[in-house]
Amino acid sequence: MNEWELLERIEAAVPAAGDDCAVIPWGSTHLLLTTDLLHQASDFPPGTTPYTMGWRAVAVSLSDIAAMGGRPVAVLLAASAPGWGGLLPGLLSGAQAACEEAGAELVGGDLDFSRELVLVSTALGEASRPVRRAGAKPGDLLCLTGPLGRTALALHLFSRGELEEANRLFRFSPRVEEGLILADLATAMIDISDGLAHSAHLLARASGVGLEIDAAALPLLPGLAAAFPDEAVEKALYYGEDYELLFTIPKGRYRSALGRVIGEAVSSGVWLQAGGKRRPLPDRGWSHGS
Amino acid sequence: MNEWELLERIEAAVPAAGDDCAVIPWGSTHLLLTTDLLHQASDFPPGTTPYTMGWRAVAVSLSDIAAMGGRPVAVLLAASAPGWGGLLPGLLSGAQAACEEAGAELVGGDLDFSRELVLVSTALGEASRPVRRAGAKPGDLLCLTGPLGRTALALHLFSRGELEEANRLFRFSPRVEEGLILADLATAMIDISDGLAHSAHLLARASGVGLEIDAAALPLLPGLAAAFPDEAVEKALYYGEDYELLFTIPKGRYRSALGRVIGEAVSSGVWLQAGGKRRPLPDRGWSHGS
Repeated sequence: MNEWELLERIEAAVPAAGDDCAVIPWGSTHLLLTTDLLHQASDFPPGTTPYTMGWRAVAVSLSDIAAMGGRPVAVLLAASAPGWGGLLPGLLSGAQAACEEAGAELVGGDLDFSRELVLVSTALGEASRPVRRAGAKPGDLLCLTGPLGRTALALHLFSRGELEEANRLFRFSPRVEEGLILADLATAMIDISDGLAHSAHLLARASGVGLEIDAAALPLLPGLAAAFPDEAVEKALYYGEDYELLFTIPKGRYRSALGRVIGEAVSSGVWLQAGGKRRPLPDRGWSHGS
Repeated sequence: MNEWELLERIEAAVPAAGDDCAVIPWGSTHLLLTTDLLHQASDFPPGTTPYTMGWRAVAVSLSDIAAMGGRPVAVLLAASAPGWGGLLPGLLSGAQAACEEAGAELVGGDLDFSRELVLVSTALGEASRPVRRAGAKPGDLLCLTGPLGRTALALHLFSRGELEEANRLFRFSPRVEEGLILADLATAMIDISDGLAHSAHLLARASGVGLEIDAAALPLLPGLAAAFPDEAVEKALYYGEDYELLFTIPKGRYRSALGRVIGEAVSSGVWLQAGGKRRPLPDRGWSHGS
């Protein structure tokens, strides 16, 4: 059983799960709630600073709020580590800085000791009209808020010892402003934390539509092609841990400032259009435990 | 640096921390948010069932909502384990049962893999008048919602292989109903997850008062004295991981149905009255990493 299968089992047992956040109706609006686990071994390569860890742990949850068109309100950070000497101040200031940028407040958390560093961030948000993974209609444009390959490139730089640039790439800005604008425009939305391919499959499945992606339209981060000369598109499609928003929008509502068009919703199947040929896009990517 | 010192450093850096929950003003009411880490090594002795683990992880967070006089709304459960075979169904149903008993809903979570089992529950609640640790006045009665020693006794039973009764004790019911009634009556409140002694110190410090506890008035769980013939009161005072509510209340508002009177608020110091003598109650207890 890998992580995706686990999450599917949770979704089967927990009816409110299955979107980037849980949605809790609250008077005339909705509260959004999401939690994310990060581990030293799988999420923070050697050279990651405590500040970057704190930032990224929080940003991952804020990205889930953004993906539903929500306004971030408050964040909790629970953290467990073998020891805390030197770790806490950077971790807290990174977490607080990521909150501040997104207009949220770090309001509390929990700390203790364990063999491995584990960070668990929880974000609370609010959305009058949450945008879900379900809602795309055939004919909608499929769009992306920004370039692909950020984490693939960052890990490449970590492995080469280019730590400053690697840490900078790791401290991504969740697409909160974009998400708030898209709340009134998008028909379906998801962040691509599991990679573009798997995220596209999740959105298609939830919406009951197909998606066709144009490989030539995929925006790649500057430096990705140089780092991975033969497999930049492969990384862009499957690598995961990117935190752009993937959304569908009716053609008449699209403006170029909202993001790059990378394809469109069709009646069924998830397809990659490349070199004049259309082939099924496999539902694979990066997954803990796979 | 032990866990309490860590938490004090968080409180210094995060102004909203320092109560059982973060309090977020929300229109005419308040949202409450709390998160708790539990680890296999320190929190779940051999023989703890997955159902009990799920229940207890959720109950620990719901107890924080109860401790502020809040109504639990929603819970997230993030969990990491070396493997998931056989663990997930019990964990989820225990978590859901604890939510249901408290009137909350399990709305989502996150799952992945790590060397040690780690559970992180987050609870969202609501309180029109949150009861804080600050607010006790000299002369208020000091009261407790129920008996002491539950976790001390449960661990004793786990060590003796009396697993069914140990698991039953471990699955405590957070004092949600009591907390809701006390929201209109108590001047200060805290759950005694860190032990009665330390919790009393935290409440006294936040309120700027002293507390005097009468050893003879301490309610002990049936079986505690038999399990620990020479140190039952010691366990009751310092053991921790009890989840009763400790609260102060003006004498005129007290009714016996609210809980047992164990002392009163005084001008300064935290004292234990025993055998006609008053001695300072040390600020110690059970703490991760100490």
